[in-house]
Amino acid sequence: MLFRQFFDHASSTYTYLIASSRGREAVIIDPVKEQVAQYLTAIEQLGLRLVKAIDTHTHADHITGLGDLRERTGCLSIMGEYTKADCVSCRVTDGEVLDTDGIRLQALYTPGHTSESFSFVLAPDAPVAVFSGDVLMIRGTGRTDFQNGDPGKSWDSITRTLFALPDDTTLYPAHDYKGWTSSSIGEERRFNPRLAGKTREQYIEIMNNLDLPDPKMMDVAIPANLACGLDAG
Amino acid sequence: MLFRQFFDHASSTYTYLIASSRGREAVIIDPVKEQVAQYLTAIEQLGLRLVKAIDTHTHADHITGLGDLRERTGCLSIMGEYTKADCVSCRVTDGEVLDTDGIRLQALYTPGHTSESFSFVLAPDAPVAVFSGDVLMIRGTGRTDFQNGDPGKSWDSITRTLFALPDDTTLYPAHDYKGWTSSSIGEERRFNPRLAGKTREQYIEIMNNLDLPDPKMMDVAIPANLACGLDAG
Repeated sequence: MLFRQFFDHASSTYTYLIASSRGREAVIIDPVKEQVAQYLTAIEQLGLRLVKAIDTHTHADHITGLGDLRERTGCLSIMGEYTKADCVSCRVTDGEVLDTDGIRLQALYTPGHTSESFSFVLAPDAPVAVFSGDVLMIRGTGRTDFQNGDPGKSWDSITRTLFALPDDTTLYPAHDYKGWTSSSIGEERRFNPRLAGKTREQYIEIMNNLDLPDPKMMDVAIPANLACGLDAG
Repeated sequence: MLFRQFFDHASSTYTYLIASSRGREAVIIDPVKEQVAQYLTAIEQLGLRLVKAIDTHTHADHITGLGDLRERTGCLSIMGEYTKADCVSCRVTDGEVLDTDGIRLQALYTPGHTSESFSFVLAPDAPVAVFSGDVLMIRGTGRTDFQNGDPGKSWDSITRTLFALPDDTTLYPAHDYKGWTSSSIGEERRFNPRLAGKTREQYIEIMNNLDLPDPKMMDVAIPANLACGLDAG
């Protein structure tokens, strides 16, 4: 298997490229529109063929590369079944497994940050890693105050769905702002300051009082992303 | 083995934490002074004991965390044998292998970016990864216009020493400015625009005409780093 993590400095977004070293088919998760040329360079130089581009959810802080990648490579554009983005070519359901040349990714419905967020587990029979979008982040969690976010659902998605994965499952979130590039389920269970030793009620209280400003790009990014980034110029 | 990559946003520096999952002894490569508290948090939460802190060379763009980590953990501070930093507790020679609880790192003398730069190969008997400092970067190379840098020596270090490693050796540089987090020796051999298809003379010409401004922190960082970052406040 071939694995690459990319970082978009402007939005602190992590993007993941996963490919089979056998048939060279590749999947990309949470691509950023401004970085599409870089992904295509990597895909070409590594001798890969992009067949799937996945967004974990409708991002509010950057414009997705899903549409551009589909236009440039003919890949499928994929989101979870509750997305409002009419532009996606395929919607996955909770528990569904996407198989790409032997690279297996299981979709898990993990609402909370938004009502349509999914996570994706790599090699679900013996989990290696989980791409958690903005639901669970490294020593943090995604805000729950817009796009039908819900702190109670965030708690349930994290503690019942993601924390049910083995402790040594590597956690790859869609963002980090402190310079960490990965974590593990066990670490977040034990050390995430919003979750460890907290009750569901305490978590809801924390999330309802974060008092964060709206993301700078929100008014642009959400409508653009509902069109897979293709109307965004 | 446990492996973590950290990113310092201010200087675009990558720092690497490598530990044995058996005895929990850890090595850190190219730590940044401002991030020491984060490394110590990770080391504590992962149940590790830091025993070695390595700088690949005297950095000109950030202040090293070597001294602070030695003071806080009692670890060895390590650089190559030609460093002018009197503060290091151990100097490695070309070809020497550092064994940390079974984690083997071989020091390779790779001058060019500076006259005292070393790279470190993980598991040298069957190379897994190389930490190349600023000598070889992802689709780039480190500038050669100060600290006794020498483009001819940079070419020789890269093409004779680093490119002698197997193609599938993962490349982990000390910096990246475009959002890539790793590469491989084979990729750089084939696709690094300063090296692929170039002669030694052409490379020297490219490097001698980069016309880069001095690093912003150079006048502070170099003297501070010769004291392992401990006089830097």
